[in-house]
Amino acid sequence: MTIDPKSVLRLNMGQWQGGDQPMYRVGAHVLAALAPAPTGPVETIAVPPATHEERTVEQGIKSRPAVLRQFREAQAAIARHAPEAIVTLGGDCLVDLAPMAYLNERYEGDLAILWVDAHPDIMGPEQYSHSHAHVLGNLMGYGDPDFGGAVPRPVKPEQILYVGVNDMLEYEQDFVARHAISVLSPSAIAENPGAVREWFAKRGYSRVAIHYDLDVLDPALYPFLYFTNPHVDPSEFDGLAKGKMTMEQVAKILKDVATVCEVVGIAIAEFLPWSLEPIKNGLETLPLLGKAG
Amino acid sequence: MTIDPKSVLRLNMGQWQGGDQPMYRVGAHVLAALAPAPTGPVETIAVPPATHEERTVEQGIKSRPAVLRQFREAQAAIARHAPEAIVTLGGDCLVDLAPMAYLNERYEGDLAILWVDAHPDIMGPEQYSHSHAHVLGNLMGYGDPDFGGAVPRPVKPEQILYVGVNDMLEYEQDFVARHAISVLSPSAIAENPGAVREWFAKRGYSRVAIHYDLDVLDPALYPFLYFTNPHVDPSEFDGLAKGKMTMEQVAKILKDVATVCEVVGIAIAEFLPWSLEPIKNGLETLPLLGKAG
Repeated sequence: MTIDPKSVLRLNMGQWQGGDQPMYRVGAHVLAALAPAPTGPVETIAVPPATHEERTVEQGIKSRPAVLRQFREAQAAIARHAPEAIVTLGGDCLVDLAPMAYLNERYEGDLAILWVDAHPDIMGPEQYSHSHAHVLGNLMGYGDPDFGGAVPRPVKPEQILYVGVNDMLEYEQDFVARHAISVLSPSAIAENPGAVREWFAKRGYSRVAIHYDLDVLDPALYPFLYFTNPHVDPSEFDGLAKGKMTMEQVAKILKDVATVCEVVGIAIAEFLPWSLEPIKNGLETLPLLGKAG
Repeated sequence: MTIDPKSVLRLNMGQWQGGDQPMYRVGAHVLAALAPAPTGPVETIAVPPATHEERTVEQGIKSRPAVLRQFREAQAAIARHAPEAIVTLGGDCLVDLAPMAYLNERYEGDLAILWVDAHPDIMGPEQYSHSHAHVLGNLMGYGDPDFGGAVPRPVKPEQILYVGVNDMLEYEQDFVARHAISVLSPSAIAENPGAVREWFAKRGYSRVAIHYDLDVLDPALYPFLYFTNPHVDPSEFDGLAKGKMTMEQVAKILKDVATVCEVVGIAIAEFLPWSLEPIKNGLETLPLLGKAG
């Protein structure tokens, strides 16, 4: 690869407000602890923990001032380094707005956007107040003007390849069809394992930025997903698209892609380590260490 | 409490060589990610990950040069701050050698040592090559001279109270009896819930340093323990003392103790988050982020 490892920015971003789920912040901290060591500079965006304050909706977006401030701070952090590539550890999916916006500008649109996710993330404030579902729409220039309008070079629909998206809502289906965005559902990939590679060969982009929303994974297999929240009755998730892939399948696809296209961005989002709640809560009760101490 | 929160040192120490189990290093990183934010200075001892090199035994101690260097670096880190109190996040149990040695010297022996553990940790190189089982012996001045001999003011047996120790080996029973160290087994505490408090009232120490080895917990209830290693057949653990307590029981005892004695040290040791192995290994296979990238 031609990327200088010293020019790969590691961006830690424990944003949880975009998904209105405080556990995303914990997930970001844990992901940063688990990830291989950074090879270049590290920036950590300050994200306050959840309080008992109301998380209000403004202009159709929950916790709008917080997510807007974090987006702008991520933009500033990236600008400080002008990196050749960015590894982003979220946090909710919206963490990828600043990195992908920067990369698309830097590489002047010669950039494939590989969006590995169960959901297309193209809704706007009219459809849903959780801005983690807006991020790819924002990257295309849509949605709230302070988000979508702050992307210097909007991503064109033909740059995008969805992997793992399935069971789209009607609004999502219409948007994706209207923009003729390429979609490879889990079953399409199962039928033709070479489909991702064929798309890259046909489009011919030199570089790729990868968005890896862990909810593309099958919640029956992985306990750290949105749909495995032990505090929510599973029936509440009825009708929502769930991931159907395995980590090994995704890893193979990404490895394949990396042989035909230079990877200049990867974001890991929506890690929710529910199994660590007991020990986290336990630590908080201990003298000297805990909040009471 | 009279401890200045700004004078509480947070010591992160991902030592794994004392238990010869690389997952202790991962556990330390994750524990630091989960713990409440530090209130004072933070020191992180550099601990290399495991390689495929042989972890040799020298002078009866596995990976002796590594654990000795880490011990000395922890001593130096503590000396740089001369803190009033220390929160140590391990790593294996040996991480508590430098902190407790410092605290016993600083407070001139007016210090209770509350050792919350399934095991008494008083073996020497003759008994066992894993130095995490030597640490309290070292604090008393025993064992390898570079460890036990480097404790400026050895802990006296009467300063120590074991909580949760059970099913001791013959050597351990003899040592504990010979030194007349107080032991409150899980069943003794169940019979007399006030026993810990009574011990503190009788001994009258002004301060206490707490060693919390998570293996005091019942492995049937907590999946992050030495005895829940998914790579080891459970029968291999036959004959070894296992924890019998719950996190709530331990938290209650420590909270109680904190009302009668000033807590100047707490170390959390032996956290082994096996459930995170799949995601950790998965991250390592990804382009740009992983080792291959």
